[in-house]
Amino acid sequence: MPVERTESLAAVLRAVRSNRGITQPMLIEQVGWGRSVVATRIAELEAAGLVTTAGVGPSTGGRAPRQLRLRSESGLVAGIGIGATRMEVGVADLSGRLIARAEDPIEVADGPEAVLGHAEKVLDGLLARYAGGRAVWGIGVGVPGPVEFATGLPVAPPIMPGWDGYPIRDRLSRRYDAATWVDNDVNLLALGELHANPAAAAARDFLYVKIGTGIGAGLISGGRLHRGTNGCAGDIGHVAAAETGGVICRCGNAGCLEAAAGGAALAREGRWLAETGGSPAMARILTAKGSLRAADVTTAAHDGDPAAQALLIRAGQLVGGTLATLVSFYNPALVVLGGEVSRTGDYVIAAIRESVQRRSLPLATRSLRIEPATLDEATGLTGAVHLVVDELFAPQRLARWLPHNTPAGRPELAAKEAA
Amino acid sequence: MPVERTESLAAVLRAVRSNRGITQPMLIEQVGWGRSVVATRIAELEAAGLVTTAGVGPSTGGRAPRQLRLRSESGLVAGIGIGATRMEVGVADLSGRLIARAEDPIEVADGPEAVLGHAEKVLDGLLARYAGGRAVWGIGVGVPGPVEFATGLPVAPPIMPGWDGYPIRDRLSRRYDAATWVDNDVNLLALGELHANPAAAAARDFLYVKIGTGIGAGLISGGRLHRGTNGCAGDIGHVAAAETGGVICRCGNAGCLEAAAGGAALAREGRWLAETGGSPAMARILTAKGSLRAADVTTAAHDGDPAAQALLIRAGQLVGGTLATLVSFYNPALVVLGGEVSRTGDYVIAAIRESVQRRSLPLATRSLRIEPATLDEATGLTGAVHLVVDELFAPQRLARWLPHNTPAGRPELAAKEAA
Repeated sequence: MPVERTESLAAVLRAVRSNRGITQPMLIEQVGWGRSVVATRIAELEAAGLVTTAGVGPSTGGRAPRQLRLRSESGLVAGIGIGATRMEVGVADLSGRLIARAEDPIEVADGPEAVLGHAEKVLDGLLARYAGGRAVWGIGVGVPGPVEFATGLPVAPPIMPGWDGYPIRDRLSRRYDAATWVDNDVNLLALGELHANPAAAAARDFLYVKIGTGIGAGLISGGRLHRGTNGCAGDIGHVAAAETGGVICRCGNAGCLEAAAGGAALAREGRWLAETGGSPAMARILTAKGSLRAADVTTAAHDGDPAAQALLIRAGQLVGGTLATLVSFYNPALVVLGGEVSRTGDYVIAAIRESVQRRSLPLATRSLRIEPATLDEATGLTGAVHLVVDELFAPQRLARWLPHNTPAGRPELAAKEAA
Repeated sequence: MPVERTESLAAVLRAVRSNRGITQPMLIEQVGWGRSVVATRIAELEAAGLVTTAGVGPSTGGRAPRQLRLRSESGLVAGIGIGATRMEVGVADLSGRLIARAEDPIEVADGPEAVLGHAEKVLDGLLARYAGGRAVWGIGVGVPGPVEFATGLPVAPPIMPGWDGYPIRDRLSRRYDAATWVDNDVNLLALGELHANPAAAAARDFLYVKIGTGIGAGLISGGRLHRGTNGCAGDIGHVAAAETGGVICRCGNAGCLEAAAGGAALAREGRWLAETGGSPAMARILTAKGSLRAADVTTAAHDGDPAAQALLIRAGQLVGGTLATLVSFYNPALVVLGGEVSRTGDYVIAAIRESVQRRSLPLATRSLRIEPATLDEATGLTGAVHLVVDELFAPQRLARWLPHNTPAGRPELAAKEAA
């Protein structure tokens, strides 16, 4: 298919997807081409079952023009978000809107057979209830480790024993007869914000920083993911952080950011304070539960325990110290903070903001915003389904699955042939 | 002009620019469109004076096909690279090949009127000798500070008093009646490597790190510049570096990388060693010259002075420590080292390599290369002319200056109308 036709099909589809209630005259004005080209492209997309009429728009004198919309109900996309200890599975329409989702505890360390087997059962259940005869056009998968995006293979993921080089993409694309993409979970969290958070969409250049058990970042450059040459961009958990006291990390190095400011560090420090009389509040929790987690430190801080508050502030300062360097280097318009340690109220965020302001280049912080994530997600499910939609409707892919002779109304057949 | 025609014109032009001796059949195979579309686009580019026949290619049975080439002699582009203490001015053809260049000492602190006035005189001289009646189609300017690329305005540049918000682009585009782009010098050095260094072109994701009086980086993401939201991405001279001993920086902060590892720090430490008996070799230079510069430290190191060698190694370690964090964060395939401190032989580069290997994520250094720059440039002149060529031949711009009714052979008129 000539590149010109593909590009213009993709552009018309993009305009319809992102402008509710757009009409043909509005579309012509927006894309700037002639009436006949636009009409032809719309007709082709209608024949393929991707675009349909939604109603009539405002008239400018003559017959009121038809409003166009994506026929998002034509097919389904699925998302599987795999975290260290839980999994989110969802089914969405072609606009990326989630129709149904399910969440389950898992252990990623149980390996790909167990975890993906479980995910497939959950997805099968969702499809049995919600598919209504519609085909799955694509699947997006997020995993908590580096991924070579072009092949969909995990690459030496530190907390995922048994997953190194496991063919996640092949397994799922064969089982569901659908194109599949695999990415790092923090990349997908960033992509989710790009689609769901208007401030992130407007920012174009932004960082998503997840502070949970591990610490990682997703980089958006000019509205697209910067994944890095090995797919491990944003892996900042093990950079050397200042003033950590050289604490030994599970990776074997000393002074890693994650070892001093991650969720495990908070739990460890909290327990030590509880056991040595530094925090009566955390001591009570430890006695009651027999253990202390990062979330318990947060609870104690909210209840006014000064030691717990100090721990959260210190974690924020450590992350902020590293972020100050990254903000000077990357000059983002926005830093989005996610992960369970970020969701602990103001202590962490305020400390991060202060450290970044104090130590970044003034120009880089002039208009910088540091805000909590809008999506309350741990595994990047929203980003996973949007990744699929974006890839399915990209010009190169449209060229493969929307040939001239697509049987009208049966695009899923062509999609599968090209998958 | 319809987007389809523009995109395909730009694609044909791009194929001709980057493939020496390409023929129409080869072009058809490469772009994957029909023969008639490609033939029409070639005819249009020939009529506009941008493409011409270079000879005949290998025959596959019938008449030998014509080889196509960019008519790079149709017009000129100019580059002005402004550094802290010197300036490079050059004139190139439409392939970005420099025809003539001149270099002059300047003081950027003398302000824009003095410096640009001087640059214009030098450029006028080059044009008088080398233009041969050809028009200047575009001008690229590099300055040693942050630039808002969309407007071409310097933004709070710390070592450029009087330049903040100065309309460089308006001044030059009016004087030469040519489209003008302004960018940060390290960005242009990175762009120059992207065009002149095959390893950089292949890397797609790479960092250019300049270590001179100041320290800065240029970020290439997926083959294009990441400039950041305020145009100050890569400004790493003033990030907090570990183990600097808290030396006070000219910016007012303590412990900045540049204050401990830049050229001024080398000169200062060298002088101190010379005056206190730590380095007989540097003492001799200081006595002979009455001053000591970073380049003198290098000379002493090459002559075997252990103190001078130790200074260079320490500078490399400090830069390497910061780079280790940036490599984990950005995951580049390549780090290109430029600037006068980098050009001091192996001491600095070896120390940087070792620090990065020791402290970056193993996956991020698995295939990482750290190499000296291939272009021996201080101001980014090569990148400046390539920036202009890339912008002139970008689809959006072609649409503006290559309308249907371009007078054949007079594209510079249309270019000017659209500037």
